[in-house]
Amino acid sequence: MANVFEAVSERDTLAARRAARLAVSEFNAAYCAVLDDGDLKDWPRFFTEDAFYNITSRENFDDDRPVGLVYCEGRGMISDRALAISETSMFGPRYLRHYITNERVTGIEEDGTVLAGCNYQLIETLSELPEGRLHQAGRMIDRFRPQEDGSLLLASRIAVYDTLLVPNALVLPV
Amino acid sequence: MANVFEAVSERDTLAARRAARLAVSEFNAAYCAVLDDGDLKDWPRFFTEDAFYNITSRENFDDDRPVGLVYCEGRGMISDRALAISETSMFGPRYLRHYITNERVTGIEEDGTVLAGCNYQLIETLSELPEGRLHQAGRMIDRFRPQEDGSLLLASRIAVYDTLLVPNALVLPV
Amino acid sequence: MANVFEAVSERDTLAARRAARLAVSEFNAAYCAVLDDGDLKDWPRFFTEDAFYNITSRENFDDDRPVGLVYCEGRGMISDRALAISETSMFGPRYLRHYITNERVTGIEEDGTVLAGCNYQLIETLSELPEGRLHQAGRMIDRFRPQEDGSLLLASRIAVYDTLLVPNALVLPV
Repeated sequence: MANVFEAVSERDTLAARRAARLAVSEFNAAYCAVLDDGDLKDWPRFFTEDAFYNITSRENFDDDRPVGLVYCEGRGMISDRALAISETSMFGPRYLRHYITNERVTGIEEDGTVLAGCNYQLIETLSELPEGRLHQAGRMIDRFRPQEDGSLLLASRIAVYDTLLVPNALVLPV
Repeated sequence: MANVFEAVSERDTLAARRAARLAVSEFNAAYCAVLDDGDLKDWPRFFTEDAFYNITSRENFDDDRPVGLVYCEGRGMISDRALAISETSMFGPRYLRHYITNERVTGIEEDGTVLAGCNYQLIETLSELPEGRLHQAGRMIDRFRPQEDGSLLLASRIAVYDTLLVPNALVLPV
Repeated sequence: MANVFEAVSERDTLAARRAARLAVSEFNAAYCAVLDDGDLKDWPRFFTEDAFYNITSRENFDDDRPVGLVYCEGRGMISDRALAISETSMFGPRYLRHYITNERVTGIEEDGTVLAGCNYQLIETLSELPEGRLHQAGRMIDRFRPQEDGSLLLASRIAVYDTLLVPNALVLPV
């Protein structure tokens, strides 16, 4: 049997990172499709029960300030947020679209947790702004936990925005 | 010999979808490179003879209205459109660039047809607008038909835009 | 032993291009992460000693004019540029983010050099412009040279911009 050290070195190879990146890429496309469709009830199912979810500014992140426009500890809080957004019916006259690029896997931990990141843009279109505009641009810092069926769930997603239009009471998920 | 059911289950696996996604990604990059170069004469060759091509608004698409700014049934109509756009020489003082992200394969049918989707942006640059602007943002809903040589052709592409600047008589292909 | 012709045909297959594209994609994500972090001292290490680096307009590129806003022959000049940008401390109140899409491998040469391309956007955020804006959009034309350890280095990167906001004395690297 392989000992832990061998298990690690076996796991975190270039080939393992490449396979993980393809899986992360599939995850992100499915995740964004749910947000883009505007139906947030399926959004929490992309997270583990104990997941951490945070949207914070680059300035706060760089200064290690544990705050954020959105700050959720556990899938329960993520579900609450999904519900709150749905009930304020922001999605009627507003279209959103997420663009994920520059996906990277920066490490794979002993237990299989995948450390990943990407850049993102969120474009919003309003009826009074039919030409659309950049609503948010930044990067994601993610931890994915592999599940028994081989799928991935987010154990942690920190969205660090460079830029944010915030004319809204409720911040849109990314 | 495998019966139909086995053939299906063999085809539409995670590995098959991943391989298909990589092929779709290569297709999309080559497709957009032709559009970005502004030489539309090569554009129709990405479609099957009986291909359907449609550019429509998210509102019309969600309401199942079979209309569109562009609506082509068959490669013949797609070629006609390419010619019409070339002849109005819209590409002189205008640069276009397509950005494809969030590529997904959502299924593979029995005959090998690949169901796929992606998000897109079209950035345009005009001599009087050298800083560029978002011209169109939305998603593609695609059906790719594998050819005998292993390549893919579009049997159907529906571009559903959230947002569209339409100060133009002729809509640009995406 | 394989002769040269066999070596070529073996190398430049669909499978080889796909593997190369995944490697290029990993390269680009790591490259952009360094630029996005704003710490340019690591930027030159992505290039070969004799690398060519050029940022030029689509108009100049199409007319074969060997000029550019940035024009570096060799890693020495690239390092000089990194230093110059750092010293003018442009990165204090400015955030940058690079978005790479449409990555393609268009060929693999006999010596293993990978010919590749992609589209890019550069979004900038300034303290006086917190909503961000498109700073540059265009495409990359790249030559990657495989190293002995299996990694890639850029032997040549030509960034051809469709659009450019140039209110800056020093052009930002892409």
